Parts: sequence; structure tokens; C-alpha cells
Amino acid sequence: MNEVNITELVAHLVLQLAVILFAAKLGGELFERWLKQPSVLGELLAGVVVGPYALGGMQLPLVGALFGHTAESAAVSVIPVSSELWAVGQIGAVILLFYAGLETDFGLFFRYSGPAFFVAMGGVILPFILGDLATVAFGVASGPMDPVALFMGAVMTATSVGITARVLGDIRKLDTPEGVTILAGAVIDDVLGIIVLAIVVSLGVSGDVSLGNIALVGGKAMGFWLGLMAVGILLSKWISRFLASFRSAGAALTLALAIAFLASGLAEIFGLAMIIGAYSIGLALSNTEIAETLREPMESVYHAFVPAFFVVMGMLLDFSAMGPVLVFGLAVSVLAILGKLLGCGIPALAVGFNRLGATRIGIGMMPRGEVALIVAGVGLSREVIQSDVFGVAIMMTFITTVLAPLLLVPAFRTGGQGTRRATTRVHPVQVEMETTERKGA
Amino acid sequence: MNEVNITELVAHLVLQLAVILFAAKLGGELFERWLKQPSVLGELLAGVVVGPYALGGMQLPLVGALFGHTAESAAVSVIPVSSELWAVGQIGAVILLFYAGLETDFGLFFRYSGPAFFVAMGGVILPFILGDLATVAFGVASGPMDPVALFMGAVMTATSVGITARVLGDIRKLDTPEGVTILAGAVIDDVLGIIVLAIVVSLGVSGDVSLGNIALVGGKAMGFWLGLMAVGILLSKWISRFLASFRSAGAALTLALAIAFLASGLAEIFGLAMIIGAYSIGLALSNTEIAETLREPMESVYHAFVPAFFVVMGMLLDFSAMGPVLVFGLAVSVLAILGKLLGCGIPALAVGFNRLGATRIGIGMMPRGEVALIVAGVGLSREVIQSDVFGVAIMMTFITTVLAPLLLVPAFRTGGQGTRRATTRVHPVQVEMETTERKGA
Repeated sequence: MNEVNITELVAHLVLQLAVILFAAKLGGELFERWLKQPSVLGELLAGVVVGPYALGGMQLPLVGALFGHTAESAAVSVIPVSSELWAVGQIGAVILLFYAGLETDFGLFFRYSGPAFFVAMGGVILPFILGDLATVAFGVASGPMDPVALFMGAVMTATSVGITARVLGDIRKLDTPEGVTILAGAVIDDVLGIIVLAIVVSLGVSGDVSLGNIALVGGKAMGFWLGLMAVGILLSKWISRFLASFRSAGAALTLALAIAFLASGLAEIFGLAMIIGAYSIGLALSNTEIAETLREPMESVYHAFVPAFFVVMGMLLDFSAMGPVLVFGLAVSVLAILGKLLGCGIPALAVGFNRLGATRIGIGMMPRGEVALIVAGVGLSREVIQSDVFGVAIMMTFITTVLAPLLLVPAFRTGGQGTRRATTRVHPVQVEMETTERKGA
Repeated sequence: MNEVNITELVAHLVLQLAVILFAAKLGGELFERWLKQPSVLGELLAGVVVGPYALGGMQLPLVGALFGHTAESAAVSVIPVSSELWAVGQIGAVILLFYAGLETDFGLFFRYSGPAFFVAMGGVILPFILGDLATVAFGVASGPMDPVALFMGAVMTATSVGITARVLGDIRKLDTPEGVTILAGAVIDDVLGIIVLAIVVSLGVSGDVSLGNIALVGGKAMGFWLGLMAVGILLSKWISRFLASFRSAGAALTLALAIAFLASGLAEIFGLAMIIGAYSIGLALSNTEIAETLREPMESVYHAFVPAFFVVMGMLLDFSAMGPVLVFGLAVSVLAILGKLLGCGIPALAVGFNRLGATRIGIGMMPRGEVALIVAGVGLSREVIQSDVFGVAIMMTFITTVLAPLLLVPAFRTGGQGTRRATTRVHPVQVEMETTERKGA
């Protein structure tokens, strides 16, 4: 690529970012201020409207189609935007999850990691079975061991923590028992999902599952994650002091981002999603002094780049791919919702949450987001599934992703604690408020 | 590109960003704290060290060569990094110049735009002549109208305002008469440079200059810039109120970035550099209330992305390309320094600066940065110049870019005003200080 083209390419990218950020804020304001809904929904919808399948595909003077998506590239790629734009969106996702990790209550996370494990297990097993059987029931697969059915099952297991983290952050519920269970559950879910995907890919490609390979892939992912958490927690005080020791302006912020990027990149190399690395290292640092220093500058970086992630997510929606498989798609979407509501909700009930808490957790684990699309894309690129099943995956992803924030805000707004025993919310602001209330009473 | 590859590509990018941000802060700290030099030099040097021509080219376990640059791609592209990394660096440049625009004193800019025009004219004409003649004198071109000589001249005219804006910002001199003259001069210089490039490209390709085409290219660039400034200034109060009217968190910052990206992308479409658009719209908004609101959040975004720009600039340096043309390169570098010192300094003297002020302006206009590389890249890709002349352009760029901050800090530290008449520095803090001093006296 010569430098004339690269200059034009970057100019096109910044124009795309301009439209994305405008659309994100207009959509967000519409939803938050006028429709009283989470702004993230407005950002997703903005992506649909300005994306390659709607306005973005129109030819404009001077720039051509701003988000042009050719039929050829659609056939091979799940992602209908340029690699540069996708990269900016993914950087936004890393920043979002790193911020969510920093904001998570460290003590609560560990107290609820046991419950979260059971929630995640249920949220993997039930959706997998439902997805697999539905594919057989609709005649798309010949039997439950057909690779197409197994792939549909794998797509159903994914949890995209991004949407939920954003909504919980907006309504300041990241540090509730339900909030930490959802985030911990989503992280564990991803590790389990990787193992499921490894099994399904082995089956789909070779028709044979090698137990050794599954153990290798799963062990690598699990081992890396446990190692990252252990190293992060052990070194967190030292990292905090190291970041604070720099004198040049803004060094702590720049270095914290470097650490987030490093953990994300390594997570991907070890077979996990990048956002898991970003969240885990943010969580490890959440208990340090530097987390307090980073809060405000990180929020500015968040506002600069996170909207791009959600708008790009919205851009993935292609209505035309959904027509032929509408009924199958709707059925799969309903099962995807039930799969997480029951699959996560029932274990949540079993580990000490009440019905309200279990419902919140089930809804929080519902959105599939980009993780499902990536899994489906693996299936498409390896020719295990065809574009019809892929369209169903997109439809299910979009419905669960849009529905989760719509349901999550009211579920938290009804008030009341979500645990059967007295809740132990340890956030300082909360403690202060409780103290004040006691004083007032 | 399928989604497996795009995921790996993004993971590789975030690892690159992690290394870039670490290296930037380590290099910056080394220079600022221990060597008492501007931190931007440390960031440039960090780029050289971790870049594709040094450590970055080494094969590592798991990731391969982190900044690998193959010989084939070197032959066709001036830019030895991936398009995604280049894009992130360029976003950093846009943020840098937008921030510099916001921080510029609006009134001073216009008071000094007349002087800046003469400074820019001198800084284009003299370096062009020196570059052209040196190429002939070293036997690289057959005569002063040889396309190779004309291209070398065009490369010499460019001014990269990025380095200077960063250094002036670091030492808080953006709002001095010299500071605004340098920034305004660099902007006008870019418009003039575009016209020179158009002439040279026409000559190089067709051997004939069409006056109509030159007028068209130059008029389009100049017309767009004047139009952007006019629209920006006329609408600035309205834009400020519009940004402040949003209720969702961080909306003003997100929308301000959208405006900066829009102006940058349009500037490129109309034949100017992106950073000119970013700087101009920042300047137009600098006089509004929202500029004050944006200062702190913009600073955080700056720390997150601007270091990537300077490290990527450092990565462009390839020592091995310089060996064969060392003497020619050194001569051109010396002429490039003198060309701006005298070419900008003498007009500065003529329009009311004293010798100290003229020296500061000459030094500030010295760095060529990425603008010269892009111009040289146009020549290389159109096969007007060969890789030896291209190596000289890189060498000249690097020497002027590194030298400028080294000289600029002491030139401002000697103190004393740079204008012959009493300086009229109108920054509120300054006025307050002067008032306090008068009270104390």
C-alpha cells in the first residue's frame, strides 16, 4: 500500500469516526433524554442507521459510500467495516472493560466468584442444548451431533459483557452482588465458551474430537486467565507505585492503558477474548490507590472511544439477511433469552440470590454481542455453517443485545436487594449514605 | 479478510500499542527527568529503538516480529508500519493539533496572521531554492528544472507543526507572539506547500506545467481553508451552546472530537493535510466557553493517543537507508536548517520581531516531520525520485525534527520578549500576574 492510499484511507477513517461519534451522541441523547432508555441503545441504533446496510451504503459526493460494504467482502467476512474502523471499535471495547474492571468492587468480586462459576456453567450448558436441539427441530441440521447444530449451540453460549458492563456502569450498579456475579460469570463463561468452541470446531472439521486438543485449548485459556489474575493481584501494589512514580504529565494514564492493551493482546494469544484480559487486569488494579487517580482521566478516554464500539456493533445488523430465516431466527432468539434467564437464573437461586436477583443476573448474562458473531464467523469461514444459519446468529445477537438493557434498567429500578441474606454492599459512598440514613432515623 | 484474521490483527495492534505507550513514557521520563530535555524527544527515540528497523524487527516467541517490516513493502511504501497502527498514530496527530488549536490565543492568532504570511512565504521559497540547487550541485539532478531537483525542493518546504506545537505546549508558550506566528505560519506554509507539490508533480509526470491545474489545486486548498475558518468562527458560539446542551455524560467531549475528525477528513479531501483541519477548527472554537470545559478531558485523551503519534514518527527512521547518501544527506540537512532559520527569520525581522524572536520562529518552523515524508512518498510512488533521494529526505526530516525541540527550549528559556515593541500578551493568567506585580511594586 503506498502512502497516498494510506493517507486517503486515514482521511476516510476520521470521516467515519466523525459520523459515528455524532450519530452516537444524537442517538444516545434521544434515548436517554426523550425515551428514558439507556443511551447505549441509542448508540447501537445509530450504528444501524448510519451503517453499511442503511445510510452508510449510499453513494455520497466526494467520499463515495462512507461505510461501503461490497457483496464480495460480505461473503467472506462477518465484519462489514474496514479493519481500521474495526480496530478503533475494539480499542473502545478494551477501554470499556478495563474501566469496568477498575470500577468493580474487588472484595465483592471474589466473594461472588464461586456463585458466578455456577451461574456461568448453567448459562453455557442450557443455551448450548437449546440451540443445538432447535436447529434439529427446524430441520436445519440432521441430528444433535450434526456440526451445524453444534455450532448453533456454541453461538448461543457466548456472553458479551460489554453491553451489560456499560448499562450497569451507567446506573452505578457495577458494585452490587448481582453486578459482580454477572461480570465474573461473563468472564468464566468466556473461558468455558472457548472450550466449547474448540470441541465444536474439532468435530466440524475432522468429525472427530481429540480429547488432548480440547484439554490443551481449554487448559491454556484457563491457565492464562488464572495466571493473569494472580500476577495482577500480586503486583498490583507495585504497579500502582510504579505508575505514580512518573513525573511527566499524564504518565499514569498512558501507562495504565499500556497495561490494559498488553493484557488484552496476551489474552487473545492465549485463546481468550481481548476484553477478558482488559477486564481482569482492571479488576486486579481496582484495589489500589492508582485506581482512584485514574478514574477521571479514564472516563474522558472512555467518552472518546467507547461510543465507536457500540456504533460499530450496530453496524453489523443486516436486515436483508434475516428475511428467509425469520421464524427460525425468532425461535432461536426466544430460546437464547430463556437459555440465559433459566440457565443462569436457576443456579443463581441455588447459590443465595432471591428471585429478583436471579432475574437481574439472567438478564445481565443475556446479550451475546460481538462474541457470538465471532464464533459464528469462525463457523462461516470454516464452512461448517452457511449464510442462513449465520443470519440467524446475527438476528439472535441483535435481539438479545438490544433487549438486555431494556430489561436490565427496570429490573434494577424496582429496588430491593437481590440476595436472600442481608446484602453487604461495601462501596464507601453507599456506607456513607447508610450512615447518614441511620443518623436521620 | 475473515474475522479470525481480523481478530488476530487487532490483538497484534493492541500489543504494539502497549509497547509503544510503555516505550513512550520510559523515553519521555528519561529525557524530561534525567536529561532535562523535552519528553517528545524521548518518545521519538523510543520509536527508533522499538521500531521495525531495530528491536521491533526481531522475531519474538508467540507474536513474531512485533513491528515486522518486509523488504517488499519497504520498496513501495514510505510507511513501515501497518495501516491500523498508522491510523491510530494519525488520530493522535489530529488530537494533538485540535488541542493546540483550542489552546491558542484567538486574538493573537489574527493579529499575527499577517506577519505569519510573510514568514511562511520566506520559509517556502528559500528552502525550495536551496534543496533544488543542492541536488544539482551533488550531481543527483541534471539541472535546476530536473524533476528530481524540484522534488527535493518541494520536500524542503514542508513544515510539520506537530513537534513544535507539542514543545510550545509543554513549555506553555503557545500563546506568545512567536508561538502564534509559528503555528499560523505552519498552517499557511502547508497551503503554499500544496501548491508547490502540485506544480512539481505536474512537471515530474508530464514535463509540462498547466497553470489551470495549479490554480485549481491551490485555489481549492486555499478556498477550503478560508471557508473552514470563516464557518468555524461564525458558528463557534452556536457550536459551543450546542455541545453544552447535551445531557448525557461526556457528550461535549465526544462531539468536539467528532467536529475535529470531520474538519480533518474534509481538509484531506480538499487537498490539505488532516492536521490543518484539526488545528483550524480548534482555533475557531478556542474563543468559546466550551473550550474551557474541554481542556481537562481533552488533556486525558491527548495522553492516551498523542504518544503513539510521536513513537510512530520515530519508527520511520531507517539508518541503513542513509549510509550511501550520507554526505549529500548532511548537506541537505544543513541547508534545510538554514533555509528555515533565514527564510523565516528574515521576514520575521522585517515584520516587527527582534533577533531573539526571529530565531525562535526560524527554529519553530524547522521540523519537517511526516509532511516531508508524505511529499517524498508521492515522489517515490510516482517514480520521480529513487530510494537514495528518498533516504536523504528521511535523514533531513529526522535531523530537523530532533533538532527543533533541542534548540527551541533554550531559545525560549533565555527569556526576554521577541518583539521590538512592547509585547501584548493577552492571556488572562498573564494579565493577572502583571496586575499582581504592579500591586506588589
